[in-house]
Amino acid sequence: MPTSPTDSPFAHLGWTPTHGVRALDQTRLPAEEVWCDLESVEAIAGAICSLVVRGAPLIGLVAAMGVAGEALRLAAAGATSDAVHAGAVAAADRLVATRPTAVNLPWALGCMRRVLDASAGISADQLADALRAEAQRLWDDDRRMCAAIGRHGLALLHDGAVVHTHCNAGALATGGIGTALAPVYAAQSAGLRIRVIADETRPLLQGSRLTAWEMVRAGIPVEVIADSMAASRLQRGDVTCVSVGADRIAANGDVANKIGTFGLALAAHAAGVPLYVAAPTSTLDLATPSGAEIVIEARHADEVRQLAGRLLTPARADVWNPAFDVTPAALIAGIITDRGIVAPSGIHAFDA
Amino acid sequence: MPTSPTDSPFAHLGWTPTHGVRALDQTRLPAEEVWCDLESVEAIAGAICSLVVRGAPLIGLVAAMGVAGEALRLAAAGATSDAVHAGAVAAADRLVATRPTAVNLPWALGCMRRVLDASAGISADQLADALRAEAQRLWDDDRRMCAAIGRHGLALLHDGAVVHTHCNAGALATGGIGTALAPVYAAQSAGLRIRVIADETRPLLQGSRLTAWEMVRAGIPVEVIADSMAASRLQRGDVTCVSVGADRIAANGDVANKIGTFGLALAAHAAGVPLYVAAPTSTLDLATPSGAEIVIEARHADEVRQLAGRLLTPARADVWNPAFDVTPAALIAGIITDRGIVAPSGIHAFDA
Repeated sequence: MPTSPTDSPFAHLGWTPTHGVRALDQTRLPAEEVWCDLESVEAIAGAICSLVVRGAPLIGLVAAMGVAGEALRLAAAGATSDAVHAGAVAAADRLVATRPTAVNLPWALGCMRRVLDASAGISADQLADALRAEAQRLWDDDRRMCAAIGRHGLALLHDGAVVHTHCNAGALATGGIGTALAPVYAAQSAGLRIRVIADETRPLLQGSRLTAWEMVRAGIPVEVIADSMAASRLQRGDVTCVSVGADRIAANGDVANKIGTFGLALAAHAAGVPLYVAAPTSTLDLATPSGAEIVIEARHADEVRQLAGRLLTPARADVWNPAFDVTPAALIAGIITDRGIVAPSGIHAFDA
Repeated sequence: MPTSPTDSPFAHLGWTPTHGVRALDQTRLPAEEVWCDLESVEAIAGAICSLVVRGAPLIGLVAAMGVAGEALRLAAAGATSDAVHAGAVAAADRLVATRPTAVNLPWALGCMRRVLDASAGISADQLADALRAEAQRLWDDDRRMCAAIGRHGLALLHDGAVVHTHCNAGALATGGIGTALAPVYAAQSAGLRIRVIADETRPLLQGSRLTAWEMVRAGIPVEVIADSMAASRLQRGDVTCVSVGADRIAANGDVANKIGTFGLALAAHAAGVPLYVAAPTSTLDLATPSGAEIVIEARHADEVRQLAGRLLTPARADVWNPAFDVTPAALIAGIITDRGIVAPSGIHAFDA
């Protein structure tokens, strides 16, 4: 298992022997560490929709691996080059439709499509190998981008720093050491004492389930709070900064991220604590002028209504359950990218 | 069952035949409607600590009933007047220590103590009856105060109004039609169409469990959201006002209320939606100059860590679990009291 600072601190992603995707089931953490073998495009689509794999960079990676895997299976079964091409295109079409908000998903699939577009005259095996190489390149790049975010973000931290985060934008959300948590891992590697405050992140509890699990596993002290406690927690005066991920960054620096990020940003602003968004430049979407144009995924009411089979609210009550919100650029102190820290207004200079 | 606008829309509190308190167990709603018979001071203290009964006005009432019940049981058993007096004082001492933040609890017990202080020369039975009458007067006053809050708050609403609330400051939290929800009940009685948005209110889900149950029961449309969705929900432009209760109002108008109220107030301020605090004047605490001096109850980590027996976060993660926060007066558009709506800066005029 890789242990250097540029690599994921623990394994949660890999290939199966038959070109499927092997992934830690994130819906079952922290209670159980169960791996899923996703051996078809449909299995991968289901895993993305049901959040078995989640996190903007990770779902892009897994989708790219899914396209490559489909091509490899078809080639191994003796399909023609055209059939492999058609199968890979169909896989990309299916996977891009799984979730609407994170831009990394269409971005990674766009990279796979460029390989397909450049594939004229090559054999089925060559095409499948090229797709697998592209998926592996995306993974390697993601690891490097995470490490670079960590290096840049480290400059914001000091020995004894306290980082407040929301949802999980850690190693579990990427192919590397994460985005929002990359500076935390970098600080640990640099020998700094560091402490993380994790919003539990209702309704799906990615903070209490995943970020806390990751931090405990990495030996980094972590304090879990209910989302509604963030405004009070930030007033206590010991928080160095807020660090969150991003699912899509609009051209004006507005950021779509897990629901609750906007409220956390308001709370940080009120407390005078700087909020940083950490994201690879692939999260930038220059085609979207501002947050107002970002499509926000609406998820099923039962995510709010139920937990572990227990009904939390009467069946006759309505539920509103958006998966993301938009934090206006004015509330963001800086965006920590793999290419440096910039003000939100300067993000358009980093066209990926 | 009382049905007039001045009375609770459903029964959740009463006396047992043996001078105990009969209360709907609020920890088991909405799944089960189970009544508890609390036949001793210790049983009442336990019910307050474990939130079987909760809500600032209600715990004051239940504690007062507990003191009266203890006196009635002692008198019925033939105790001397002095012994009844001593038993009632001990009951008040025990009950005032159950929860630190809501001022209604010491306020209601202070009323009971004044009856005890004025009891020289009366018989055991007379003393017990006087205490029971005082508890009943507190209940009747609470009903009237709730109804008055509803009448005053009704002026803020119109046909089609949408009221965003946090936690449960409804009928279940009082002996009447609630505080924050009193204007909603008053609007319904006045024939207005009205809709409620209920923050689920982690960790104990008083919004999704109790407010939603109350609204469904009353036939008022209710929409439940996770607390972290409030900032986005308020941006949608259809919310008339935010209405919350209070556990203690300091002399400068700062308000202690359920954890999450402060963050909701920041979100309402950002959205330009006015936030009102609804509370009887008995919630005013002139002896506390500002929110900084209010003691905030810290509750057990397991309330955040577990739900329905399921571990939500690793056991090795720390948890911070304050039950309340302080909303500064500057974020409050007005305080709806039983004596009218005032600016937070004017609340000291209403010395209860």
